[in-house]
Amino acid sequence: MSASALERLRSRRTAVGSPLCLGIDPHPDRLPEGLPPTVHGIETFARGLIEAASPLACAVKINVAFFEAFGSAGWAALERTRADVPRGLPCILDAKRGDIETSAERYAAALIGHLDADGVTLSPYLGEDAIEPFLAAGDGLVYVLARTSNPSAGRFQSLVADGEPIHERVARWAAERWTSGRVGLVVGATAPEELATLREAVPGPAFLVPGVGAQGGDAEAAARAADGAWAPGLVNVSRGIALASSGRDWQAAAAAAASVHSTGLSEAVLHSTASPVRAADIGGS
Amino acid sequence: MSASALERLRSRRTAVGSPLCLGIDPHPDRLPEGLPPTVHGIETFARGLIEAASPLACAVKINVAFFEAFGSAGWAALERTRADVPRGLPCILDAKRGDIETSAERYAAALIGHLDADGVTLSPYLGEDAIEPFLAAGDGLVYVLARTSNPSAGRFQSLVADGEPIHERVARWAAERWTSGRVGLVVGATAPEELATLREAVPGPAFLVPGVGAQGGDAEAAARAADGAWAPGLVNVSRGIALASSGRDWQAAAAAAASVHSTGLSEAVLHSTASPVRAADIGGS
Repeated sequence: MSASALERLRSRRTAVGSPLCLGIDPHPDRLPEGLPPTVHGIETFARGLIEAASPLACAVKINVAFFEAFGSAGWAALERTRADVPRGLPCILDAKRGDIETSAERYAAALIGHLDADGVTLSPYLGEDAIEPFLAAGDGLVYVLARTSNPSAGRFQSLVADGEPIHERVARWAAERWTSGRVGLVVGATAPEELATLREAVPGPAFLVPGVGAQGGDAEAAARAADGAWAPGLVNVSRGIALASSGRDWQAAAAAAASVHSTGLSEAVLHSTASPVRAADIGGS
Repeated sequence: MSASALERLRSRRTAVGSPLCLGIDPHPDRLPEGLPPTVHGIETFARGLIEAASPLACAVKINVAFFEAFGSAGWAALERTRADVPRGLPCILDAKRGDIETSAERYAAALIGHLDADGVTLSPYLGEDAIEPFLAAGDGLVYVLARTSNPSAGRFQSLVADGEPIHERVARWAAERWTSGRVGLVVGATAPEELATLREAVPGPAFLVPGVGAQGGDAEAAARAADGAWAPGLVNVSRGIALASSGRDWQAAAAAAASVHSTGLSEAVLHSTASPVRAADIGGS
């Protein structure tokens, strides 16, 4: 029997020793020299980044929006890009879908089935109806948005109901409901207090932490909080690697930046005493 | 200068006299006799439904999930289906996207730009960062999820913060922030109390009301609550029209069912005294 998505993530973490997640968000207006602002340009950039910068990454996270912008041609580019992700490198599709019933089942058919994602990001606003079809569609991981990294994240996520903020309620709900390790949480590095509080509130689930680098979050704090008792966490870096150079040396620059980030995150995890788990504990046997 | 999406919706409402929204959710396992459970089958079904059942509808709502399930081939079918929607019939893409910054901008490029939607559905969980890029991308309408129609809708939407449930907070936030009439709310007919309370709390925004028929909501109550002071509301019917017959007469059956629904909803609006606006007031000048 082949390994599950969670086992693949654990193996990869053991192999690379770092929670670095390579974020692929190819914007046509931000391509390096020589690439056209077209679907061909973003595909070339995405595949080139994965080729150059993924050897030291624990996972790759592809943001569906940047492909979908080009409609069916963009989705075809997404299919090729996903197929190009090396075996053994877990591939998360950052789709933030949130629908119910047969609609959720059809999104799961797209992302988990058709695109064979190892993990997806999902919105909690509609409750478990929006999550369970993705768990039923295979053995892939699900990262539920708890506290996002954007300026207006607190608009609803920070509202306090029954004495606790909504993002904490979401985290506890996910942690109590799904204890298999397959359900993690998205918690932005731009909210360091919430990040620390949430890690304390729910020791089990892995965190997928966006928002370091360009968005201003502290990468080391993110690395210390990312690992859960049930699964290894991920710290996403997109622009810090993808935009390391805007020149023709972008692949080499991305590889070098990935190396720096991977090492830095790895050291932050190893030297962490605050983290509820040590890297060795979550690396799998 | 051509009419805006809101003007097109008002004109259409005046023309058909009913808030009926024709929901297109083609599931490959629920196609009528003679259609294969493939992307070709769902496209044929979707286009056939629009052709047969849209003449009496105020809008058509296409659920992106059912096309996306087939990847790029599904998106190509979605592009053709959308292009096939008659001029003058507002087309809402039910996508429930919820992302931020350039990601939201790219989803808007896909739905508002590439697919030329007159309206989209969006999740509020990330705050205004997830909404504004869609308003900036054109003149299209945005329907923000407030109270959805599924069983676990209340999990977070009904939590009470500062004395009001989250779904009401979402509704007030949208109504206070965007007063142009371009931002409406999704409020499920399966929660009749919330539907009535929300209509009272925010008289301005139009409601897009799913959940009547198969999901059990009361169509007449939905019709009475749907219209806002700023824009005409919509009551979505999907299965009640699409699955009117599973035989080869599905197009004729769908046309007949749409006629019954359109008339019923039209009468409910006309005879409503509880509604804060009368059909005549929101039909445009």
